[in-house]
Amino acid sequence: MTSLDLKMRREPRQQRTLAIIQKIEQATLALLKEGGIGLLNTNAIAERCDIDIKSLYRFFPNKEAIVYRLAEQWLEEIRQREQAIYQSDLGLVEIWDALDDMIDGIEQQFSGYGALWQAMDVIPALHGLEQAHETLQIDNMVVLLRKHGCCWPQKDITELARYLYRTWDVVKQGSIEQGEARGLMWRAHKKWQHRLLLSAVKCRDSAEFEQGLAD
Amino acid sequence: MTSLDLKMRREPRQQRTLAIIQKIEQATLALLKEGGIGLLNTNAIAERCDIDIKSLYRFFPNKEAIVYRLAEQWLEEIRQREQAIYQSDLGLVEIWDALDDMIDGIEQQFSGYGALWQAMDVIPALHGLEQAHETLQIDNMVVLLRKHGCCWPQKDITELARYLYRTWDVVKQGSIEQGEARGLMWRAHKKWQHRLLLSAVKCRDSAEFEQGLAD
Repeated sequence: MTSLDLKMRREPRQQRTLAIIQKIEQATLALLKEGGIGLLNTNAIAERCDIDIKSLYRFFPNKEAIVYRLAEQWLEEIRQREQAIYQSDLGLVEIWDALDDMIDGIEQQFSGYGALWQAMDVIPALHGLEQAHETLQIDNMVVLLRKHGCCWPQKDITELARYLYRTWDVVKQGSIEQGEARGLMWRAHKKWQHRLLLSAVKCRDSAEFEQGLAD
Repeated sequence: MTSLDLKMRREPRQQRTLAIIQKIEQATLALLKEGGIGLLNTNAIAERCDIDIKSLYRFFPNKEAIVYRLAEQWLEEIRQREQAIYQSDLGLVEIWDALDDMIDGIEQQFSGYGALWQAMDVIPALHGLEQAHETLQIDNMVVLLRKHGCCWPQKDITELARYLYRTWDVVKQGSIEQGEARGLMWRAHKKWQHRLLLSAVKCRDSAEFEQGLAD
């Protein structure tokens, strides 16, 4: 699977070609949403957007290449919107909440986030994409915490950022799965996130931080 | 992948046969640990335990069937030890900590937990196994919370249990990955778990619970 060809056969240039590719992408996203990656195949995609399977293969070598392109575009969209938020003058917690709002907004716009994210978990060829995204997210969080005064050693601050990113991811996915992006446990988790962020910039080191979390 | 044959070709009865199968399983676990599921293949497994590939195929149709059997045994071991803990007379937090100790103990004994768990994420045919395990774990937690007095509606208590299970999983995996099963963020997360458990049995409903978590 690692050597799977994920490149588009050729980049679209003409308006008409672009339109076909967008139809393929939309159909893929819709099918992913309906039945997950397990039921996805190129025949079903071609059928759904009413094009000949040969046209599909003119652009994409396999279904994974379509999902790869979708995931790339979607992650790029997240990163661009994120940059705008990180560069703003908002406070720590306000930036955190703005990131949350942004992600929920993207979810509504892209509609299929959950299915796409799951596909990335299941298709080994997409793991690289996901890992690169995680690394960037963790780096961003470390920079944010440093900017707001966290002076922990790199190992500890990275561990906190990794925790924030991974639990954010799993709790948000679970909430979306339950049909409520901001359900009970997402709201509870958010309070916990706020507490961790504020403690991280207030405490000189992780020992003081840990002490302060006494149950 | 969903129709992949995961059954052993025949159940071992003789002592000598059992020994071969154990060698195959140990080799698979070791290879998983070294290179992950991506590099695992039946030839490498046969070579590692110094048996003919034909002998391997006499018992297992493919590598997934070996991983499936390993995962089944491992989850069964967890469930048996868990039952003993759940049936004890310990308090809520003490039971929680005993479960944690038990899992860390299994990890040391089975040595390869992380790799096996990741394999379950990546091999679609193993998802059913993982989902059944998650459902059981969540049910167990709901029963535990009820036993200790939580009287929330089923939807809310289940959401809490799902949160506890999934974040437990992702934080523990991350800690093991970093080479410290009880690293900084695991310890922080555990304090948060304790707080959630105690609030859940103390608060009449999830609204009071949420109020009490005010940051």
